[in-house]
Amino acid sequence: MIKSLGYTIYIGEKVFKDLSSFLKKQKYSNCFILCDENTFKHCLPGLIIQCKELKDAEIFEIESGENSKSLQLCSQLWETLLSYNADKNALIINLGGGVVSDLGGFVASVYKRGIDFINIPTSLLAMADASVGGKTGIDFSGLKNSIGTITQPKGVFIFPEFLETLPKRHIANGMAEIYKMALISDKVLWKKLQSAKILDNTFITRSVLLKNNFVKKDPLDKGVRKALNFGHTVGHAIESVLLASEVDILHGEAVLAGMICESKISLKKKLISKKEFDEIVNTLTQKFTFAPLPALLFGEMVKATVNDKKNTKLQIQSALLNGIGKNKINVAVTPMEILESLEFYNSITI
Amino acid sequence: MIKSLGYTIYIGEKVFKDLSSFLKKQKYSNCFILCDENTFKHCLPGLIIQCKELKDAEIFEIESGENSKSLQLCSQLWETLLSYNADKNALIINLGGGVVSDLGGFVASVYKRGIDFINIPTSLLAMADASVGGKTGIDFSGLKNSIGTITQPKGVFIFPEFLETLPKRHIANGMAEIYKMALISDKVLWKKLQSAKILDNTFITRSVLLKNNFVKKDPLDKGVRKALNFGHTVGHAIESVLLASEVDILHGEAVLAGMICESKISLKKKLISKKEFDEIVNTLTQKFTFAPLPALLFGEMVKATVNDKKNTKLQIQSALLNGIGKNKINVAVTPMEILESLEFYNSITI
Repeated sequence: MIKSLGYTIYIGEKVFKDLSSFLKKQKYSNCFILCDENTFKHCLPGLIIQCKELKDAEIFEIESGENSKSLQLCSQLWETLLSYNADKNALIINLGGGVVSDLGGFVASVYKRGIDFINIPTSLLAMADASVGGKTGIDFSGLKNSIGTITQPKGVFIFPEFLETLPKRHIANGMAEIYKMALISDKVLWKKLQSAKILDNTFITRSVLLKNNFVKKDPLDKGVRKALNFGHTVGHAIESVLLASEVDILHGEAVLAGMICESKISLKKKLISKKEFDEIVNTLTQKFTFAPLPALLFGEMVKATVNDKKNTKLQIQSALLNGIGKNKINVAVTPMEILESLEFYNSITI
Repeated sequence: MIKSLGYTIYIGEKVFKDLSSFLKKQKYSNCFILCDENTFKHCLPGLIIQCKELKDAEIFEIESGENSKSLQLCSQLWETLLSYNADKNALIINLGGGVVSDLGGFVASVYKRGIDFINIPTSLLAMADASVGGKTGIDFSGLKNSIGTITQPKGVFIFPEFLETLPKRHIANGMAEIYKMALISDKVLWKKLQSAKILDNTFITRSVLLKNNFVKKDPLDKGVRKALNFGHTVGHAIESVLLASEVDILHGEAVLAGMICESKISLKKKLISKKEFDEIVNTLTQKFTFAPLPALLFGEMVKATVNDKKNTKLQIQSALLNGIGKNKINVAVTPMEILESLEFYNSITI
């Protein structure tokens, strides 16, 4: 149980008991469960059996995948909520990965000027990262999360057993953010990850704790919290450009590539030593599979970093490493440095 | 100068000096002024002449009127902001009435998870009411403000001279909310309004002060602030239904009718005496012009009160009077009481 900004994060086998108590106490007028076809099949039945308070909940099923984070789908969900007469005392339960919680959180945060929502993350990425911190959003005009809010959920319920049905590729997807968390803020975790053979639930708890510390210090993402963006300046650009070209890439995969690139930039700026840099690249290439990026799209990717939400005018602002386990925010990076880092990334994938 | 939730409300002839200082201090990357065809013509030139910091601001002009509070127009504004590379450090300046500030505030509150905005109200309604309190929103699926946020502006700059070009009908529109403010919370103001011959700037200041007191005590509209909804349960229903039938009605006109109806309900519930009730109806009918409502649409209006944002499930929740200058929130009202009050309203317009 971890306390966050006005709500509690529950982790473990007994979270559905906590969820039952939560629902009994809150007395919502209506509960709506948002899921995708995967969580509908693999997670919803168990949830409803174990949490009887949800037996009359309405189920909204969306298609899995980033394409669902659209304004059009928001419109449909708002229409549906209205058609059910959902009032200000209704609850949205986001049962899924980051797409479900980003979308459902945004839909809730502006419906009738804001109704409550909770997150039940079902992917490792969502458990270790996305479900905590209150960032909600949709993609707009080809830009990831360009429309959204920072609105805290009323509770997060993490049930690690949901990971049993998760494909391997999606486990790696979540591990990427745990490695990032270690690199920016916890050298001990980094060492443990290097020697770990399997995914251990304590990694999830540790990652949530670390993230929560950043979030509590800086809820609105104006200062220290920006450290969480390590790997994301380049990562988001890769993700946006590839998704626009209909290349299949997961968020964590893009962030991993971004972490390689931004470690290279950290080295160039003498924020990490050559030894640390080699340790990072060797560990990540040992633990994860990397595919080369289409060099023809590098120009597009550099352009996308310029248009990143995190920037202030005309300057790419990046969060870099400052030694392993430490970070430095608001570092100005040039388009040329981004391009060189992408070229370096491809060189290690050959 | 009135302090609100983390920002200041400036009122008077010198507000553009305050605005200049504010802009110098904040160093925004980009300023976007949102206006309609009326404020473009009557207010923008003076603003730019008096506030040199805005000489390079981009101007977005929208059509005046409630129809502009649409998701489609939000989309267009977000696209435009992106096309100007507006970053997280950009500012939106809402130069207009409630439509402009509701729309511009919402657009700002979710663009890149929230950028700053300020309000420069140009109508009496916006000066005395809408520009303060942080409610933003658009109409969706025929329901007023059904999508929106509660996000405070970074400043409000009230320049009463803008009222000189405002049509008479729009002055009455704003006076409606000032009378409401008096009825729910300030008997002294009520007496002054009864004897007043002309609009006095002190009425604006007093109204903002009174509203600000409610807002500061209850920013998220979960308790005492609901008192501000007096006249709005029935008023919003009238407004929604008439606008859907393309009948031209202003917000304040609908609220005035709503105040008559809800005074009648307050009387029925013995919250005000017959003497107080007569005083309210006589004063309002003396000061304002009332037109009968189409009785054929009463059914629709009753239905709309059931679907009001402010309700909790299956019960119409209204904020009523509790004597003149006092209020009572969360009073359950039946559909029949709404209908009877609408019939009473029509009886006084004949």
